[in-house]
Amino acid sequence: MNRLISIASLAALAIAAPLAAQETGKPEFPSPHAIVEQAPPEEWIAIAPSDLLVMDLAADADGDPRRVVIQLMPEPFSQGWIRNIRKLAAAHWWDGTSINRVQDNYVAQWGDASEEKALPGGLETVPESEYEIEATAGKQGDIILWHPKNQLTDSYADWTWFESGWPLAQEIGDGTRTLSRWPVHCYGAVGVGRNYSPDTGSGAELYTVIGHAPRHLDRNIAVVGRVIEGIEHLSSLPRGKGQLGFYEDASKRVSITSIRLASELPTADQPRFEYLSTEGETFAKYADARANRRDPFFNVPAGGADICNIPVPVRRVKAE
Amino acid sequence: MNRLISIASLAALAIAAPLAAQETGKPEFPSPHAIVEQAPPEEWIAIAPSDLLVMDLAADADGDPRRVVIQLMPEPFSQGWIRNIRKLAAAHWWDGTSINRVQDNYVAQWGDASEEKALPGGLETVPESEYEIEATAGKQGDIILWHPKNQLTDSYADWTWFESGWPLAQEIGDGTRTLSRWPVHCYGAVGVGRNYSPDTGSGAELYTVIGHAPRHLDRNIAVVGRVIEGIEHLSSLPRGKGQLGFYEDASKRVSITSIRLASELPTADQPRFEYLSTEGETFAKYADARANRRDPFFNVPAGGADICNIPVPVRRVKAE
Repeated sequence: MNRLISIASLAALAIAAPLAAQETGKPEFPSPHAIVEQAPPEEWIAIAPSDLLVMDLAADADGDPRRVVIQLMPEPFSQGWIRNIRKLAAAHWWDGTSINRVQDNYVAQWGDASEEKALPGGLETVPESEYEIEATAGKQGDIILWHPKNQLTDSYADWTWFESGWPLAQEIGDGTRTLSRWPVHCYGAVGVGRNYSPDTGSGAELYTVIGHAPRHLDRNIAVVGRVIEGIEHLSSLPRGKGQLGFYEDASKRVSITSIRLASELPTADQPRFEYLSTEGETFAKYADARANRRDPFFNVPAGGADICNIPVPVRRVKAE
Repeated sequence: MNRLISIASLAALAIAAPLAAQETGKPEFPSPHAIVEQAPPEEWIAIAPSDLLVMDLAADADGDPRRVVIQLMPEPFSQGWIRNIRKLAAAHWWDGTSINRVQDNYVAQWGDASEEKALPGGLETVPESEYEIEATAGKQGDIILWHPKNQLTDSYADWTWFESGWPLAQEIGDGTRTLSRWPVHCYGAVGVGRNYSPDTGSGAELYTVIGHAPRHLDRNIAVVGRVIEGIEHLSSLPRGKGQLGFYEDASKRVSITSIRLASELPTADQPRFEYLSTEGETFAKYADARANRRDPFFNVPAGGADICNIPVPVRRVKAE
């Protein structure tokens, strides 16, 4: 083994494999990763190819391909924008567009740099009310509360929790606003660029989060999905030197070769992914372990975690 | 103006300049950035050159220089490791070492890839007790509480707040642990790589956070500073393909030309920086505006923010 990735180096930060108790003198607690590895097959849920967006970028400087896979958000959230995105993909509208903005600790954004390319017909104008949905009080009983000290575990919402594989937030309501819930901006979240209110964006201009979760965007911009593979092809791009990280030099823009729904690809080429059920026993153990690291590297478990520091496990599986 | 960075595009995400009320139909609220721009000179505090670490990397593919500037943490935190870091810089120990690990949404790490380079004499072995310091109950009255709904604004600690320009966290104590406080891992934080406990690291192996705040590392690894300029030279590097993001291919490692305390550079070459006092009126307004975005792009202010989403403003100033 290369000395650089010796056991000592692997242990240098946080994700080391658990050591046996006799090696560390501590009780053995599995790492969050090891917990997920032990999940029974029935807790892994297939993601339909029709819910995957496959973005191919121009090859990198070494000639290596760059593919980014995005999972679209399921009902009931953001469906108007997602219908638009499906139409844009079916029209091959993004082919030949580019990554136009990379702002450090914030977002990478793509679309038509010329702002002159005609959109396909039939796109919806989605109202601002779709940024959140009315919640029913009865859902309270279903909420997974993983913070041992305090149920108000979030700095931005009354509650945050996971449901059907997604991080969500909720406001209980204070008399001036109704009970509502919404999807949140974590690392890798994909959202819809827009102009000033009342514009909500069509879905043609998209971005993904490449820094600390910008949760102040929640309920202000539509979250339509998340990058589940290949985000490094966006997060490692050179930062734009113009305002807000736009590239001033057009030659720095990376071309988008194509964006397709995976269901539009030949069956053999369709990538297959599964997510770990957020309603299963394994996810509950995993979330607890993320909030209370007791694997050998750690001395002090935090006693909590914010929702964006508990990424939902997603894995690639072989085509059937 | 290039169409790409037209007003419409600038508004596409979150940091647009405030528009006059008549343009938007909304009352005018300044953005957090605009608030900081209005700070009186006396609220900007100079950072001593002896507290700045200047890291020069090999030039990039275009031949452009890559300089990263790190501000070291002030007393009383992490001073044992910081004394070691000052010695390592004075010995020019890092010259010729490299960036060896870039893990997406986590850290970029540097040091001696061979793990065979002899350390300078006189480095301290810092005890684990130095990860946090005993707090005095009397400090409670000084805490800046910027969350309007709930004083327990954090998912990881009883309290978080800013003091002397730094984000800090505190545990009130529950009978089993004493009242303690510690510096937190936000984006750009610089920490000390280490082996398993009881090792605490010497300071020769350092990393910076390039993703969502890994707050589970708080109190488990020493935070010794933060990158205040040039983090894009680390965050945009290709991700390592080995375990934990280490580069398997040694040719991918970026060389460190030199790391110096700024006070060791010729006076004319010393970079000068100031941070916005976290005890002043401007910072209080800025933090409130970060937690409650009301500038024209926003429809719904969050009503809160986590401490890592309120970066302390730092600016470069001309040499005297």
